[in-house]
Amino acid sequence: MRFLHTADWHLGRLFHARSLVDDQAYVLDQFVDLVREQRPDAVLLAGDVYDRAVPPPEAVALLDDVLARIVAGLRVPVVMIAGNHDNAQRLAFGARLMQDQGLHVAGLVSKDPLCVRLRDADGEVRLYALPYAEPALVRDAYGVEPAGHEAALATQLDAIRAVHPAGVRSVVVGHAFVVGGSASESERPLSVGGSGAVAASVFDGFDLVALGHLHRPQTLGERIHYAGSLLKYSVSEAGHAKSVSLIELDARGGVRIEPIALRPRRDLRVLQGTLAELVAGAAADPGRDDYIHAVLTDTGALLDPMARLRQGYPNTLALERAVLARSGTAGAAGRRLRELDTATLFADFFREVTDGELDEPQRAALQQALGGLDRDVRGAEGSA
Amino acid sequence: MRFLHTADWHLGRLFHARSLVDDQAYVLDQFVDLVREQRPDAVLLAGDVYDRAVPPPEAVALLDDVLARIVAGLRVPVVMIAGNHDNAQRLAFGARLMQDQGLHVAGLVSKDPLCVRLRDADGEVRLYALPYAEPALVRDAYGVEPAGHEAALATQLDAIRAVHPAGVRSVVVGHAFVVGGSASESERPLSVGGSGAVAASVFDGFDLVALGHLHRPQTLGERIHYAGSLLKYSVSEAGHAKSVSLIELDARGGVRIEPIALRPRRDLRVLQGTLAELVAGAAADPGRDDYIHAVLTDTGALLDPMARLRQGYPNTLALERAVLARSGTAGAAGRRLRELDTATLFADFFREVTDGELDEPQRAALQQALGGLDRDVRGAEGSA
Repeated sequence: MRFLHTADWHLGRLFHARSLVDDQAYVLDQFVDLVREQRPDAVLLAGDVYDRAVPPPEAVALLDDVLARIVAGLRVPVVMIAGNHDNAQRLAFGARLMQDQGLHVAGLVSKDPLCVRLRDADGEVRLYALPYAEPALVRDAYGVEPAGHEAALATQLDAIRAVHPAGVRSVVVGHAFVVGGSASESERPLSVGGSGAVAASVFDGFDLVALGHLHRPQTLGERIHYAGSLLKYSVSEAGHAKSVSLIELDARGGVRIEPIALRPRRDLRVLQGTLAELVAGAAADPGRDDYIHAVLTDTGALLDPMARLRQGYPNTLALERAVLARSGTAGAAGRRLRELDTATLFADFFREVTDGELDEPQRAALQQALGGLDRDVRGAEGSA
Repeated sequence: MRFLHTADWHLGRLFHARSLVDDQAYVLDQFVDLVREQRPDAVLLAGDVYDRAVPPPEAVALLDDVLARIVAGLRVPVVMIAGNHDNAQRLAFGARLMQDQGLHVAGLVSKDPLCVRLRDADGEVRLYALPYAEPALVRDAYGVEPAGHEAALATQLDAIRAVHPAGVRSVVVGHAFVVGGSASESERPLSVGGSGAVAASVFDGFDLVALGHLHRPQTLGERIHYAGSLLKYSVSEAGHAKSVSLIELDARGGVRIEPIALRPRRDLRVLQGTLAELVAGAAADPGRDDYIHAVLTDTGALLDPMARLRQGYPNTLALERAVLARSGTAGAAGRRLRELDTATLFADFFREVTDGELDEPQRAALQQALGGLDRDVRGAEGSA
């Protein structure tokens, strides 16, 4: 049995205030073509279909169009789940009416998870669709009190194991952060404060686990697979090779995964050099329409570098000065700045400005101020 | 052929900051029962399905549930259009996939309007579903430049007339304000500044015109029918008898309309009397849980009348003082206060407070101030 596995479409996403809907439509046209060529037994769309709970109307129209072409046009079933970016109820509108057509949508978590049964020459395959669900929703649905994300997922998977017939091949479509997976900057954390990660072992016994959430395509062990996101959605993903995955499930439940790249309308690239070098190189660059994140190595002052860069690369979205990022101490260098805690950043700043170190009373005053700030921030989030 | 015609569900509507979703679910349960009993050939849902472009998730879930029960459960087709409160793209999600199941949704205006063909013993009936559309959208779809709402609708109806076969019965499902119809306070005007109204004659030649928009059930001529809203959505509708309409279309296109009342979870009533009278009467009032708009006739000061009233009528939503409303001049009496212009209201207020009339310089100063205010308000609206 063959599946096309994809995830994290994030339809309606804005990138540096630009709508990516046209880019998404461009690459989804190729995806529909691929479905037509490959004729998989099902398309697995593993969550974060939209970028936010209330997607813009053009994103709704795009999803509607793509699903209609695959399900009604090509008669290939789609199994789609809500991710942590989706609103479960909105995504599931019409689910009951569309399932007979072959669109299977799992929005809200349910004690009786959506199970799609498919057959091939080798027999039956059951696909279990588990939407992303906060532990509190799993508690409400199952009447248990899961300690966290891993326990919540384990609760759902145990319930499936209890009813899944022996000898029948099994697929889980889910949206989770499995320990050991490699994250990017554009994934919204599943859990603030606690850990949203789950051990790979919660999926033991299932033949294939087709996941969404992590934006880099990757396989953990042999059976747990992330198809990765449709496009590069953050600079940290510039080096990713985005793809969708053609997965073959053999008669005994063995899995073979083949990545298939889709060609984006515009790539997302990080370019480094002086402003003059970058502008000069643009003319001969076949990808001059790509989305560019520029790291300028000029040391002196620059007059309106964004405007000048856009003369060469019209879709330059962001610009940083390597020399500014490198200033300060060696330990705080470059892009890792954002990983440092506030106290360390302030100490670096103090050193930069005063050429001296914080003394103990200063350090204590800083800690006190930051502690209060942190409480305020957390208080404000708690009431949001 | 028999239809159940309903409109203006306004799912997700807030009424004095209260969600009406439970009230809507309550009455829609009865509607589903009615569909089961009556087994019409189709349900016609003539727009303003939701109260706003982005309805709350529980309203989405309610519509999903009701449509699934009617279309998938009872196998009765539904023809549903977007009204001026709906977002066309959002409402139409899944339309292509659901139409084979019997849910026909017209969201965006199209040069090729949705046409649903039904048959009975007397032959064919064609139902044309025309979503509400701003004239600018009709211009884009048809490549003409309609002068206003009436011309925009006429353009669409003329296009239908051009293809509709003679001798076949015809039904239009639409959302419009037909001249001569009786309006309420909860209908959002179709046109700000211009006229959103259309002449009844634009519908000439169609056997049945099943409309939404006006919240009072009413028939104009013999064939143009408003089913009215699902519930009373403003105090001005307290006197309405809300209903859905069972419509029979005979072999020659003759129309017979029968209103069928649904029982609201809570009625909306206006009660008038002194605070003491109203509170005293509540105990014996079988409708003490109704939504109450109270008009208090007390002349003296009252201490926290809302809290005291809610001891008798817990769902009192609004309260006005008849004596305050009647004070001022006879011409400004009572509920008509809100119809007066600001200058008249101010003059009344001035007379009330000073026992004198505005002199000419005062009147001029007032006009100047109001003019500036008016410009500011209009400016702010224009930029919203």
